[in-house]
Amino acid sequence: MIVEILSTGDELLTGQVVDTNSTWLMDRLWDLGVMVRRKTLVADDRADLVAAIRETAARAELVVMSGGMGPTEDDLTAECVAAVLGVPLELHESSLRVIEERFRKFGRTMTPNNRKQAMFPRGAEVIPNRFGTAPGFAVKVARGEVVCLPGVPLEFKGLADEWVLPRLAARLGDVPAARVLKLFGVPESHADDAMRPVMDDPANAGVRWGYRAHWPEVHVKWTVPGPDAAARADRIRDAVRAIFGEAVWGEAKEELPELVVARLAARGERVALAESCTGGLLAELVTRVPGASNVIDLGVVAYANAMKERLLGVPAGVLAVEGAVSEPVARALAEGARRVGGAAWGVGITGIAGPTGGTPEKPVGTVHVALASAAGTVHVERQYRGDRERIRRQAAYEALNLLRLALR
Amino acid sequence: MIVEILSTGDELLTGQVVDTNSTWLMDRLWDLGVMVRRKTLVADDRADLVAAIRETAARAELVVMSGGMGPTEDDLTAECVAAVLGVPLELHESSLRVIEERFRKFGRTMTPNNRKQAMFPRGAEVIPNRFGTAPGFAVKVARGEVVCLPGVPLEFKGLADEWVLPRLAARLGDVPAARVLKLFGVPESHADDAMRPVMDDPANAGVRWGYRAHWPEVHVKWTVPGPDAAARADRIRDAVRAIFGEAVWGEAKEELPELVVARLAARGERVALAESCTGGLLAELVTRVPGASNVIDLGVVAYANAMKERLLGVPAGVLAVEGAVSEPVARALAEGARRVGGAAWGVGITGIAGPTGGTPEKPVGTVHVALASAAGTVHVERQYRGDRERIRRQAAYEALNLLRLALR
Repeated sequence: MIVEILSTGDELLTGQVVDTNSTWLMDRLWDLGVMVRRKTLVADDRADLVAAIRETAARAELVVMSGGMGPTEDDLTAECVAAVLGVPLELHESSLRVIEERFRKFGRTMTPNNRKQAMFPRGAEVIPNRFGTAPGFAVKVARGEVVCLPGVPLEFKGLADEWVLPRLAARLGDVPAARVLKLFGVPESHADDAMRPVMDDPANAGVRWGYRAHWPEVHVKWTVPGPDAAARADRIRDAVRAIFGEAVWGEAKEELPELVVARLAARGERVALAESCTGGLLAELVTRVPGASNVIDLGVVAYANAMKERLLGVPAGVLAVEGAVSEPVARALAEGARRVGGAAWGVGITGIAGPTGGTPEKPVGTVHVALASAAGTVHVERQYRGDRERIRRQAAYEALNLLRLALR
Repeated sequence: MIVEILSTGDELLTGQVVDTNSTWLMDRLWDLGVMVRRKTLVADDRADLVAAIRETAARAELVVMSGGMGPTEDDLTAECVAAVLGVPLELHESSLRVIEERFRKFGRTMTPNNRKQAMFPRGAEVIPNRFGTAPGFAVKVARGEVVCLPGVPLEFKGLADEWVLPRLAARLGDVPAARVLKLFGVPESHADDAMRPVMDDPANAGVRWGYRAHWPEVHVKWTVPGPDAAARADRIRDAVRAIFGEAVWGEAKEELPELVVARLAARGERVALAESCTGGLLAELVTRVPGASNVIDLGVVAYANAMKERLLGVPAGVLAVEGAVSEPVARALAEGARRVGGAAWGVGITGIAGPTGGTPEKPVGTVHVALASAAGTVHVERQYRGDRERIRRQAAYEALNLLRLALR
């Protein structure tokens, strides 16, 4: 099945806006076992758009278009599709009524231009849009179908999820089963080596494999075709879980901060944070989760030694003898956060994020993370590579991972 | 001048990797006054790639290709360009020696495949690559030139900056002058209205205008063509600054957190932060800047009222009477942070980031930000729209903006 994507919009060709719709749709299509054959991006220009529609429609069985569906003069999609088909634009009465109703509801004044959003090529199937003003539409062409969706990401994704993808799945018949396992602490190259036995297993012939670096995580993904796809995909999941063990922390749409917050909430426990090199990144990741206030009362960004000492009770002697970036200080930070915050769990992070501040003994990237609880304090030391942002992010995820493991 | 971009790579068509090279290059080309005419993305497939090269080269005066330059079987760019030209691939001896030297230097073993990276279509101009292994190359075609660059972003951008863009600028002759002003606190629609007199000024005919929503900032951008472009562009800058006054915080590549850190460092002063609804985001933004340790010792994420009271001295009575989301609490947080951190400046942020927790009197999006100093405490109340992430980000930037204004 040949699928192409065609996006239109001057703002996409001047680097002002990234065409996230395409990447999102490619990912969804890949889950259906379809690799997009070609993706084209053209300006809001009649001649260019007509040429691009004609070319893509001649090659592909399904063309998904994004953009050019607004009310302004630059919005040319319906007009150009009609030109390619050699049919006129016609007013779609019920769409017009929906648009009018929408304007009334939001108390806005409808301009004559908005009427344009209810004009479609004769014979088009209109795709109602409950996410915004402009409906989408689909037309038959020589080899298949051209589906035109609004470019606003919320609307594009909404209509693709509700209309395009289910119909495509039905048209494809056997949809492959897609699975994702999310790993932490396994570099992508190691993951690939470790996966070899499963990938080379003759029982898994025809399976498509992929790695996605969701840094600092690695996601392993596979799609299985055929009639018993789901069962085969699940057997592979068991095999992959057996290979990576505890390094697998989640599946599908799970996110590590959400998982940690949910586990704490389920236990009715709280965590308090003491961050040095991560500078509030861990607190930000945790509190970004809605409902985080049920599991966190306190985070301290103790950037200076005096603050580690005064607010969290890290002994001055330990700071002087061991240095701020050391196991004892990480432990004292975790225990101090737990005590001051009155929480079941305390996290301490100290390290050298760079670009300066490294020494031969403690180079940039040296990080100590500790987790304190009633059962005692655990600690890991890491040596990360990369720039300041990568080191900080990896350190914050290391702490989330320690919590995840402790909260099993 | 018709410029097209052609990218190749299966990983780009399955949604695994976003083609950031194209967006970056489009932005750079726009600064030269060139809007890319079409962008095409094809798989690592001989027939598709040959067809796409042939089509783009027939339309464009310059085609910039990205990807397919690696050592593996899937890397087909040189082979397909040669096929389109009807010429053989030839070994480029000096490139081979550079590649061999590179492998020696990094102590890696060179495989026969890497030899492939020194093979180019006969007659191609080789573009040395000091950022990685694979050189780029350029060939003449009917209407102009096809330039092929490696897809690794660091290498693509490096070679585009060193080779493609300067040559294009020379070829274009008069390069327009591009300017950016960065605003905070002005919605994009207001910016557009306020800019009307400048945009409609006959003296500014031929100028191209653009807005970039770098949320929560708005960037106003213009490119001026013609022989006295720079002087005209600077005159517009003065006019735009006069319109927006204090709302203009920076130009070009400046970033607000960097600016605030630099101004604090220049004065030898420090800031201490007390965050509630932003949950560490402000601390994270400040400490992300290298050298932030010179200007920040302490951030407290006081998510619970007890922590606001215990660590920052916010009076229990004020919390009880006014509620945690109130002007007096924001002021007490700022003053408490300043006192506890022993800093010249103290920031306090409290608000309702949602999705729950709003009331009719204090709906989701209500935020109070205060800035304390020896001169007293200033305060702003805001009512933001949007989801949790947008509210938090806007609140953190509001605090940075208060600091920026106070540090003039």
